[in-house]
Amino acid sequence: MAASVKVAVDFGRADIVEPFVRHVSRRHFLKQTKVAIGGSVALSAAAYLPDAFAASDPTKQQGGPARGYGDRASYEHSARLITPVGHDTTTASYTPLQDLHGSITPSSLHYERHHAGVPQIEPKAHRLLIHGLVERPLEFTMSELQRFPAVSRVHFLECSGNSLTEWAKPTGKTVQETHGLTSCSEWTGVLLASVLKECGIKPSAAWVLAEGADGARMTRSLPLDKCMDDVILAYAQNGEMLRPEQGYPLRLIVPGWEGSISVKWLCRLKVVEQPYQTREETSKYTDLMPDGTARQFTFVMEAKSVITFPSSGQTLPGPGFYEIRGLAWSGHGRVTRVDVSVDGSANWAEARLQDPVLPMSHTRFYFPWRWDGTAVVIASRCVDETGYQQPTREALQAVRGVNSFYHYNGIQCWRISPGGAVANV
Amino acid sequence: MAASVKVAVDFGRADIVEPFVRHVSRRHFLKQTKVAIGGSVALSAAAYLPDAFAASDPTKQQGGPARGYGDRASYEHSARLITPVGHDTTTASYTPLQDLHGSITPSSLHYERHHAGVPQIEPKAHRLLIHGLVERPLEFTMSELQRFPAVSRVHFLECSGNSLTEWAKPTGKTVQETHGLTSCSEWTGVLLASVLKECGIKPSAAWVLAEGADGARMTRSLPLDKCMDDVILAYAQNGEMLRPEQGYPLRLIVPGWEGSISVKWLCRLKVVEQPYQTREETSKYTDLMPDGTARQFTFVMEAKSVITFPSSGQTLPGPGFYEIRGLAWSGHGRVTRVDVSVDGSANWAEARLQDPVLPMSHTRFYFPWRWDGTAVVIASRCVDETGYQQPTREALQAVRGVNSFYHYNGIQCWRISPGGAVANV
Repeated sequence: MAASVKVAVDFGRADIVEPFVRHVSRRHFLKQTKVAIGGSVALSAAAYLPDAFAASDPTKQQGGPARGYGDRASYEHSARLITPVGHDTTTASYTPLQDLHGSITPSSLHYERHHAGVPQIEPKAHRLLIHGLVERPLEFTMSELQRFPAVSRVHFLECSGNSLTEWAKPTGKTVQETHGLTSCSEWTGVLLASVLKECGIKPSAAWVLAEGADGARMTRSLPLDKCMDDVILAYAQNGEMLRPEQGYPLRLIVPGWEGSISVKWLCRLKVVEQPYQTREETSKYTDLMPDGTARQFTFVMEAKSVITFPSSGQTLPGPGFYEIRGLAWSGHGRVTRVDVSVDGSANWAEARLQDPVLPMSHTRFYFPWRWDGTAVVIASRCVDETGYQQPTREALQAVRGVNSFYHYNGIQCWRISPGGAVANV
Repeated sequence: MAASVKVAVDFGRADIVEPFVRHVSRRHFLKQTKVAIGGSVALSAAAYLPDAFAASDPTKQQGGPARGYGDRASYEHSARLITPVGHDTTTASYTPLQDLHGSITPSSLHYERHHAGVPQIEPKAHRLLIHGLVERPLEFTMSELQRFPAVSRVHFLECSGNSLTEWAKPTGKTVQETHGLTSCSEWTGVLLASVLKECGIKPSAAWVLAEGADGARMTRSLPLDKCMDDVILAYAQNGEMLRPEQGYPLRLIVPGWEGSISVKWLCRLKVVEQPYQTREETSKYTDLMPDGTARQFTFVMEAKSVITFPSSGQTLPGPGFYEIRGLAWSGHGRVTRVDVSVDGSANWAEARLQDPVLPMSHTRFYFPWRWDGTAVVIASRCVDETGYQQPTREALQAVRGVNSFYHYNGIQCWRISPGGAVANV
C-alpha cells in the first residue's frame, strides 16, 4: 500500500489511483510465473525476449545508417484526414488528435485548410509589401525580415469551423473529425508591431488588410490594435522553416483568433481605416443567428476542451485503470482549470494540467480513472483565466441557434459501452 | 524617432537598436522610388511583385494537394552532419544549430549517436523487463506502459562528447561541428519512479542497470535516486512516437545528464546494489585528468551556451544591425542569465531570454548589435540557477588538462573579419 499512497501524492487522487495499483498487481502473478519458466533472468536475451521478437532479434544485427533528415518509424501510420471542400485540391485536413502526445503537434500532422491548394513559393523571390496609411511604404525580403528581433511563442491555431459537425447533434465519428482542426506549434518570427513601426502608422489608421499569395488571394481585415499587440510575422515552426501547408515562407500568427485570419503565404499588408468586408469575413466565417442577423468579426476562439483518450472510434480492452487524457485551450489566455466527468455530467472533478500552461496554447490534461466495465458517458469542460467556462451544446444552441457553421465550443461527450466501444453522443 | 524609442522599450537597448532604425531607413528611399514607379499600389500584383516572382506567380495557379503526413518545402536542405565513428553505420550526426529557430529541435534534425546502427524494432513485440532487487519482476508491453499516468517535459539532450574538438584549441569549422551534439524536444512518457514502485524496490537497491536492444546492447548504470526523481520512460517526442534514431519505441530520458545514459531502444532495467562498470562508463565517457586518474560518473552536463548566429562558416553581408542569437542550457536546472561580449570578452552585457525558461531545456537568447564593419570577436557565457558560470577554455584546461574527450563546456568565441566572414577562434 506504500506505493499506492506515494502515487497518490504524485497525482493527487488516492481514491482513483488505488484501483490502478490493483490492476498492475494482477499482472504480477502472470509475470512472476513467466520469469520463473525462463529461469535465470541475468544477461541472456533468450530468457525474456518473446518468441516473435527473438526471431528478428535487433541485438544480433548491425542497425541501419544515420540519415541527414530523419523520418518516422515504418510502423507508424498516423495521418491527417483529408476532406475535399468543393474542389479536389481545395481541402481541409484534420490532425489525428487521438494519436498525439503532449502539447506540440508534429508539423507533419498540423491541421490545414486552404482555399486554392498549397502554393509553391520560392523564398528568395518572396516579398512582403506594407503600404496604405503609413509614412513609408516598405517592401521586405525574407532575409530582411529575419534581421528584425525575433520571438518564439507556443500557440494553438484553430479553424473557426472546427467541430462544425457538432452544432445540431453529435455527428463526427472520431475526435479527429470532431476536433482535428486545431493544432499547436512553437512559432518563430518578428512581432508585426516592430515592422509596422518602421513603416510609421498614420493617425487615421485603424485596420490592416492581410493578403496571401495563394490562388485564392486569401484576404482578411485585422484590427490595428491586435497587430500592434501580439501578432507575429512567422517564418519558422517547431524549430525549422514553416511547412508549405502552413504558409511557407511567411504567415501571420494571430494568437487566440480563428485560424483563417492567420493569413498564410503572406505577401501584403495594407494599413487602412476600416475593415474591407472581404468574402472571408462576410459570406464566410460569420455566424447566422436565430433572428437572421449575422455575428461578424467574432475573432477569438473561446475556451474549449476535448478528451482525446478514450475517444470515439476507440475500444477499451476491458475494465481497469485508464488515464483519461485530452487537450484544452482558450483564445483569451491561459486555461486555469479542466474538470472531467465520468458519470454523464452529474459530477465533475479537477484534472491534472501539464506544466507549463502557456497562454493561447494547447494544454494537456490528465485524469486517472478506473472503468468498472459498465456503460458510462465521459466529458471534459475547461475554464480560462477570464473565468469563462466552456458551455454545453444546449447552452450554445439557446443563444446562437443551430444555423451556425463556425465557433462551436460545446462540451464533447463520449459514451463507453460495456464492450468497451467508445462513441460520440 | 518615435519608432526608435518604442523599439527600445520593447527590447531595452536604445543604444543598439537605434542604428537598426537607420538601416531600415536607408531602404525607405529605394522603396519609395520603386513604389512611385509602380503607380498605384492598391490591389494590383504587378505593381509590387518582382519580375522573378511574377514569372511563376503562385496567385495565378491552383496550388498542390494536401498530404496525409507532410514534409518540408523543397527549397529547404538543412541536414544533420553525419560522421562515421569506426564503422560505416556507426555514426554521430550533428544538429544544424545554425539553421534552427526557437527552442524545439525538429525531430528530423535531432542529433544522434549510436554504437551499432539504428535498430528496427516492432513496437508490438517490444518488452521492458524490470528485475533484480525488486519484490515483483515485471515485463511490460508498450501499451501497458502507455496506461500509466503520463508526463510531457521539454528537455535538452547533449552528448558528453559535444564540443570535444574544442578542448585543446579552436578546431570545429561550424557551430554544427562544435556544438551540434545537443538538441531539445518535448518528451512524453511515464515517470520511471511510477513503474519502479509497481515492482517494489528492495532496501539494498542503490543503482539501476539500463540496457538497449541495439546491436551494441548499450548498457549504463544509473543511481537509484535519480531514477526515483525525474527520469522518464519516454515513448513520444514532439507530439508523435519516438523517431527510430531516438530509441523507438522506448528510451530513457535522464534530464540534464550526458546523453548516452538516456539509453535508447530500452529493453531491460536491472535494479542492483552498485554500478556495473560497463564499457560506456569506464573506457568511454570518463575524463582523463592531468594526474592520470579518470573522472567517472560525471553525469551532469554543466551550464553552456553558444552563439548560433553569426557563427563560424557564415558571412555577414555588411555593416549594420544584427540580432545575435544563440542557445543556453544547464543540466542543473534553469538558465538564469546569458551575457554576450562583442569586443573579445572585454565587456559583457545581458542578453534577452525567450520565455518560458524551462529547467534542463534549451533556452534561446537574443542580443541586438550593430556591426561597424571592423574585426571583432563575439562570445556568450551563461549562468544557471545554482550560480555556476560557464568557464573559459583556459579555466577548464587549468583544472582538467587537455586529455579529455568529454564534458567540454567552455565559452565559444567567433571572430568576424572586416569582410564579414565568421571563424572559430
